[in-house]
Amino acid sequence: MSNETVVTAAMLAIGDELLSGRTKDKNIGHLADMLTISGIDLKEVRIVADEEDAIVEALNAIRGKYDYVFTSGGIGPTHDDITADAVSKAFGVPCEHDAAAMVLLAEMYERREMEFTEARQRMARMPRGAAHIANPVSTAPGFIIGNVYVMAGVPQVFQAMVDNVLPTLKTGTPVLSLAIACPYGEGEIGTPLTAIQKAHPETSIGSYPRYVGQKFSTEIVVRGRSQAVIEVAGAQVRAMIEDIRRGKDIAENHSAEA
Amino acid sequence: MSNETVVTAAMLAIGDELLSGRTKDKNIGHLADMLTISGIDLKEVRIVADEEDAIVEALNAIRGKYDYVFTSGGIGPTHDDITADAVSKAFGVPCEHDAAAMVLLAEMYERREMEFTEARQRMARMPRGAAHIANPVSTAPGFIIGNVYVMAGVPQVFQAMVDNVLPTLKTGTPVLSLAIACPYGEGEIGTPLTAIQKAHPETSIGSYPRYVGQKFSTEIVVRGRSQAVIEVAGAQVRAMIEDIRRGKDIAENHSAEA
Repeated sequence: MSNETVVTAAMLAIGDELLSGRTKDKNIGHLADMLTISGIDLKEVRIVADEEDAIVEALNAIRGKYDYVFTSGGIGPTHDDITADAVSKAFGVPCEHDAAAMVLLAEMYERREMEFTEARQRMARMPRGAAHIANPVSTAPGFIIGNVYVMAGVPQVFQAMVDNVLPTLKTGTPVLSLAIACPYGEGEIGTPLTAIQKAHPETSIGSYPRYVGQKFSTEIVVRGRSQAVIEVAGAQVRAMIEDIRRGKDIAENHSAEA
Repeated sequence: MSNETVVTAAMLAIGDELLSGRTKDKNIGHLADMLTISGIDLKEVRIVADEEDAIVEALNAIRGKYDYVFTSGGIGPTHDDITADAVSKAFGVPCEHDAAAMVLLAEMYERREMEFTEARQRMARMPRGAAHIANPVSTAPGFIIGNVYVMAGVPQVFQAMVDNVLPTLKTGTPVLSLAIACPYGEGEIGTPLTAIQKAHPETSIGSYPRYVGQKFSTEIVVRGRSQAVIEVAGAQVRAMIEDIRRGKDIAENHSAEA
């Protein structure tokens, strides 16, 4: 379709704890869901450690390739929170205490009668010229520089920041999907499904095996940016499943007769 | 410690379904856990789509940087399973039906009185010269070429393949960790924790905020390759928590007296 718009994104999840297994990431799946709904195609995800060189290298590798980059993690008040420094370095700008963020945080801690420690002041640091991403959960803002959106790693905060960011993004024609449960394994459907995919190049047909009770079944997902197009391909997938079922019935009748 | 051995790894998770949000990955966290236990440092993870160029580019970017690369996904029998082709292309070798894998699969389907379809034969394809990774769940093998271990995406199969692979790998001195629950948020502990980290450069101290019941607390994790070293740093972390608690008691007594 000539009037389809494609908007692409990558995610960079930052944190030793994701690579050691201590924390099982929840932000990647959440962002994937939200971007899909919004019509932004998540094309790549990277997870790197809390190491400046690793963050800078990954960020510079992906920020020119996609419309948007979203990061999670490393913007808290402790020594291992180095995302603001690394992002600044990647953009070649100074990392400094942002005046507006200092005011926000100072007021919040004053209201809560808590000391605005040096560690807490770290949370106001961001690349010079960055814009804020509001944090309704715990005040300390994320930030935006260029096409990079830097957000917290704590899922509640990450999700709140994503909610604030999404309405501000340009979005594409959403990818619609049609899921069809198939009682047969991939080995049985592979050949006919390939033919259906070839006949419908404007769709992307995925098959996802499940293994339950020692038996494989499949979920077939037809994706595309037009409802009509995915319905036509979906009808062929359903017909394929019906054909396999009929084939099995005939085979069973034959053995009964033999 | 001069006699520490460091062995590094990266993971490449392959699949449109991970990027659309349809499937929430379980293999990254599992591999991270297993490698940490084994003394192999997972340094980077990438998730890419079922697109040959994306797989080849990612694989060639990481396979020279780490001792091992583990992949998940895309080795089934359907048209969107293109990992074997992409890995072959990355290594510049032909992708062909492996004779031994053809025998394994043919025998299995014969035993189960199922047709060994063209689609099922796809699962025997691998780069020329690759070794098998046994698949006790559903027979179709993963494979090894160079330092790249290609495994299935279905978690039960992935996990079984990881179990088969791990005992064959060279391993390093495992990273041990000591987790300390801390009732205070990162803003409170940031400054003293930085001092402890600086005093113990041979450890890596992480702090992981939790946000429960509108209140932040922290889990502090001290990591290192020597139990003695992490115990010493851990004792200082516990003393720090005790100091904060005492400081709060004094403050409360003061206000009670005032």
